[in-house]
Amino acid sequence: MEVIVLAAGQGQRMRSVLPKVLQPLAAKPMLAHVLDTARTLEARRIVVVYGHGGEVVREALDAPDLAWARQDPPQGTGHAVQQAMPLVEDGDIALILYGDVPLIGVPTLQRLMAAAGERQLALLTVNMNDPTGYGRILRDGAGKVTRIVEEKDASPEERRVQEVNTGILAAPVERLRAWLGNLKNDNAQGEYYLTDIIAMAVADGLQVITTQPDAFEETLGVNNKTQLAELERIHQRNIARALTDAGVTVIDPARLDVRGELVCGRDVEIDINCIFEGRVELADGVRVGANCILKNAKIGAGTRIAAYSQIEDTVMGEACIIGPYARTRPGTVLGKDVHLGNFVEVKNSNIADHSKANHLAYVGDADIGQRVNVGAGTITCNYDGANKFRTIIEDDVFIGSDTQLVAPVRVGRGATLGAGTTLSKDAPADQLTVSRSKQISIPGWKRPVKAQKA
Amino acid sequence: MEVIVLAAGQGQRMRSVLPKVLQPLAAKPMLAHVLDTARTLEARRIVVVYGHGGEVVREALDAPDLAWARQDPPQGTGHAVQQAMPLVEDGDIALILYGDVPLIGVPTLQRLMAAAGERQLALLTVNMNDPTGYGRILRDGAGKVTRIVEEKDASPEERRVQEVNTGILAAPVERLRAWLGNLKNDNAQGEYYLTDIIAMAVADGLQVITTQPDAFEETLGVNNKTQLAELERIHQRNIARALTDAGVTVIDPARLDVRGELVCGRDVEIDINCIFEGRVELADGVRVGANCILKNAKIGAGTRIAAYSQIEDTVMGEACIIGPYARTRPGTVLGKDVHLGNFVEVKNSNIADHSKANHLAYVGDADIGQRVNVGAGTITCNYDGANKFRTIIEDDVFIGSDTQLVAPVRVGRGATLGAGTTLSKDAPADQLTVSRSKQISIPGWKRPVKAQKA
Amino acid sequence: MEVIVLAAGQGQRMRSVLPKVLQPLAAKPMLAHVLDTARTLEARRIVVVYGHGGEVVREALDAPDLAWARQDPPQGTGHAVQQAMPLVEDGDIALILYGDVPLIGVPTLQRLMAAAGERQLALLTVNMNDPTGYGRILRDGAGKVTRIVEEKDASPEERRVQEVNTGILAAPVERLRAWLGNLKNDNAQGEYYLTDIIAMAVADGLQVITTQPDAFEETLGVNNKTQLAELERIHQRNIARALTDAGVTVIDPARLDVRGELVCGRDVEIDINCIFEGRVELADGVRVGANCILKNAKIGAGTRIAAYSQIEDTVMGEACIIGPYARTRPGTVLGKDVHLGNFVEVKNSNIADHSKANHLAYVGDADIGQRVNVGAGTITCNYDGANKFRTIIEDDVFIGSDTQLVAPVRVGRGATLGAGTTLSKDAPADQLTVSRSKQISIPGWKRPVKAQKA
Repeated sequence: MEVIVLAAGQGQRMRSVLPKVLQPLAAKPMLAHVLDTARTLEARRIVVVYGHGGEVVREALDAPDLAWARQDPPQGTGHAVQQAMPLVEDGDIALILYGDVPLIGVPTLQRLMAAAGERQLALLTVNMNDPTGYGRILRDGAGKVTRIVEEKDASPEERRVQEVNTGILAAPVERLRAWLGNLKNDNAQGEYYLTDIIAMAVADGLQVITTQPDAFEETLGVNNKTQLAELERIHQRNIARALTDAGVTVIDPARLDVRGELVCGRDVEIDINCIFEGRVELADGVRVGANCILKNAKIGAGTRIAAYSQIEDTVMGEACIIGPYARTRPGTVLGKDVHLGNFVEVKNSNIADHSKANHLAYVGDADIGQRVNVGAGTITCNYDGANKFRTIIEDDVFIGSDTQLVAPVRVGRGATLGAGTTLSKDAPADQLTVSRSKQISIPGWKRPVKAQKA
Repeated sequence: MEVIVLAAGQGQRMRSVLPKVLQPLAAKPMLAHVLDTARTLEARRIVVVYGHGGEVVREALDAPDLAWARQDPPQGTGHAVQQAMPLVEDGDIALILYGDVPLIGVPTLQRLMAAAGERQLALLTVNMNDPTGYGRILRDGAGKVTRIVEEKDASPEERRVQEVNTGILAAPVERLRAWLGNLKNDNAQGEYYLTDIIAMAVADGLQVITTQPDAFEETLGVNNKTQLAELERIHQRNIARALTDAGVTVIDPARLDVRGELVCGRDVEIDINCIFEGRVELADGVRVGANCILKNAKIGAGTRIAAYSQIEDTVMGEACIIGPYARTRPGTVLGKDVHLGNFVEVKNSNIADHSKANHLAYVGDADIGQRVNVGAGTITCNYDGANKFRTIIEDDVFIGSDTQLVAPVRVGRGATLGAGTTLSKDAPADQLTVSRSKQISIPGWKRPVKAQKA
Repeated sequence: MEVIVLAAGQGQRMRSVLPKVLQPLAAKPMLAHVLDTARTLEARRIVVVYGHGGEVVREALDAPDLAWARQDPPQGTGHAVQQAMPLVEDGDIALILYGDVPLIGVPTLQRLMAAAGERQLALLTVNMNDPTGYGRILRDGAGKVTRIVEEKDASPEERRVQEVNTGILAAPVERLRAWLGNLKNDNAQGEYYLTDIIAMAVADGLQVITTQPDAFEETLGVNNKTQLAELERIHQRNIARALTDAGVTVIDPARLDVRGELVCGRDVEIDINCIFEGRVELADGVRVGANCILKNAKIGAGTRIAAYSQIEDTVMGEACIIGPYARTRPGTVLGKDVHLGNFVEVKNSNIADHSKANHLAYVGDADIGQRVNVGAGTITCNYDGANKFRTIIEDDVFIGSDTQLVAPVRVGRGATLGAGTTLSKDAPADQLTVSRSKQISIPGWKRPVKAQKA
């Protein structure tokens, strides 16, 4: 089997610099959705037809399993498929897909492919309550498809037909090659229409077999940002439904955004408005609070992430308590039972089991041992304006509030740092280290008073 | 009146360790919703039938007004009710409810109970456009209910009946006891069906009176997380509707989550995506900004809580200005006209009238007087790694920025603390107290330069 | 043309202290929406009829182009229009609008006005599937409007009419004046109904021409907070639709709130749950992350605002990177390529190109040059309890972490401040300035131990 994906459309109605098929759905270009679907079908070859200005499409999505055919200038869908034909082999079945029809599903296409054959053209059709504007499927008295008639050419009776063409079809390559060669552009637009091959197939004695998609939405195309937003919601609703069916508690399926792959264990609960990007794994019993954003993260069993937390490129152990308003940035690795509290940022750091940073802290480029208490307002000064250095905090350290650790620096096991310390050299193990001025009070001191306006 | 609640279902399709009836709806177990509804009806007794592994249900929800009957192994709904019968008394009417039908309403049940009697079995039915799968209510020519026929046993004509059984019914205890004793399990599942008592009631000459719920949704059961999410949304929509009907301005009723009790005064405004948990009281004119989370809180008149604030176990006075990004934790008590600004955390503290902490501060275990200004970056060092101590700040104190107050410590009335002070002993009233090193500048100092990569 | 806006209704069902027509829709009073629509029509005069207690309406919305007529006590819609008549001129067409029908659209009204004339009364009608409760439009055999019949007076056949009166109409002033003078209040309510003029117009030989609105929702009135919330959503959906049609990527149109004017360049992307207030301009390529709130802001091309950021009265240059959890307050002006990171607050400050404040900082009343690095935890101490002072930081300065700048103070070009410095006087250019105590360690120091409970 060969897959030909038409991706040459300019998409001017998107009103964007980005070509239409690169417009993201769930943070992935629409065309990439179609390509991934084609890959799931295990096509022998995937040919993408791109158009004028489409080099950015090729650059964005090129891969070893793709072949690229250029269509320039555009002269219709039939012409587009023609450009791909030199790259596909006789003897196979060719499946035609569209880069701007991103929700097409694997089971739907498997059914379509099963209907195609040497002497069968398989055509995906849908029934619409209001088919206005779509090509109608015409059948003879025996119910056999005879041709497709476009809206403008249809008789009043034909317009009442509710079964319409989706453009998605599968046909034997040799036949397809012959039909495409016979297409005419003697129509108002001066274009070669792929649709016309249906009548040719009938004329050649092939059977045109129609199949229908699992869901109507799979066949929706995107021509503007309004439709893109509609498909985004359909896609997200489908993802949410799959999660709840699998036993995930999703407090509001209409307020969940998964832009990548979300893998959940048993008894996972996801509160409102969470966003998952990249690959996120939530182990058994993980609870994610409202308004959290997780990207490329692996979260251990029983960990709770409270509201407004943002987790990125992070690995967390079991039973951690995170947030609210906690942010972990790339390179964060947390052990078990680690607590990160409000207004705490962690970056490129390891924090071992049972350690805590509960309030207003910046932990960057640090290695923190077990059972460490990082006080409120602690800051690792990892950057001297030119280079970044690491801070090492060994097990059982207690860091007093509002301490600055000027990296590179090491705090020995069991050490205590007094509140407000600026640690500019290593702190020995088990000792109290401070840098503190004497506290003085000034009697008779007068408060500033409100300046008089001139 | 006696209430029997069937709560023995395993709920395997929930794919959860938690028994189905403990799955939360609006943060409260589904069964607890049903029990609270039964309590509102002032039942003489509430018998809960639990099943294999249901001890956790009993542990979670046991109360003095509940009796518990065990059904193990499960042998159908009729068998489940049988287990409860030893615990209910002849002469009463028994109302049968279901632990996984959580939205059933009090007025609906009152109407049902009013229809039940010594010689009347009252049955709650609904009309469905698509009744497929449900037991149909069959009536004779005079409109009297004769029996319920299950989908699989129904004739084509019977399947066209749109009135279906909800399973919720009320019947005299003595009669019910007799009918249950006559149930047979000679069916495909080998189970005893409660439904079969309808025909027995008719045979005994009782009238079967049907009533309908206020809303169809009241009768929806939950078998999987997808249905649980649907009911969560229905429940939340009902709550939002009740609030707007009562005059609360809810900017988007579809983005409001109330998980407990929300009591609002006049002219309260709630912006998008707010969550209310436990019992929350908002006095007249309170405005809650977008994305706020309030749990067990009492908010004084005219107070404004700005976006992204999280308020928990907190009492606030009038005319406070809170947030954005403010967090109050358990034990927070604020007076009137208190201001808490961004990235400020308050825990187990009292802050009196007209005091302010507007930026990046941690106030824990503190008692703060009136008209105190807590500077940006102020931290109460309440924890020495082993014990927690209180910080006392008297009226009219000015705390400079980035000050640490090492508890236990007291700042006297009218005192001023200089910026960056580490306060490790009490500060006298009316004086300026500082701990500060001399500022020095080092001429000829060279900035670090970017290290060369090897 | 003259516009008469009826705004005298008490709106008791709003259950609010605020008069109904002042209730905000998208943060603007409903009446203000209607007035702005009337202004777009370029009416010669706009007369607002207000009622008992309506002085606050007048105070809130008065403007030079408005005339105000008082109706007290209320005696019906006809009586309300009568109060306005002394203020309008013969020879014009008068258009009647309603202060609680806020979504009425300009094209709809232009069409209505085009249908009105010296001998034509133009009436806006809608067709409803369920017209119960509304006044039906009755027509003669030729299809000409003959009168409006109210629900309670309608025959069964008349009740089947689905075309109903919206109350919005346009008529020649002289005629209107005459008809209003002939109105009777001999009905159950004892009120003068504007509706009655339709029959008078027919009797006078005028043609009653009906037009229909672009969308049914334009004619919806608001009587309670539930309806207000419904209209808010309709209005927001319309705004979102206009944005996506214009090429803006809106990730979820159902989770967008625009409360003012949002002007977007090309390739703007707006993630879920964002709120825009006042006038906001987003230049080409701006991306706004989830849960952001922007008010009166102008954002330069390519700038990215990450999640949970709140931007108010701010101007940002190109290619800035803002947030997550960043807050800019009024008077913030950022140059190009400025970075503000998490838990950073900026107020009334200028920050020039390429400068950064990435973590946990408060920048208030400051002027910051180019290429400045503001370290984590930096605080400008701009307030001495009575006055506010400015902090000046010149180009190429490096501010170490957890530094306090006690304003008024200046940091010279190229200066470096050591971590933890309290800067209480100017720092010379190019030098390192610190205020730091000696770091000492105390051997044999014993950690505090957990106190025994008594």
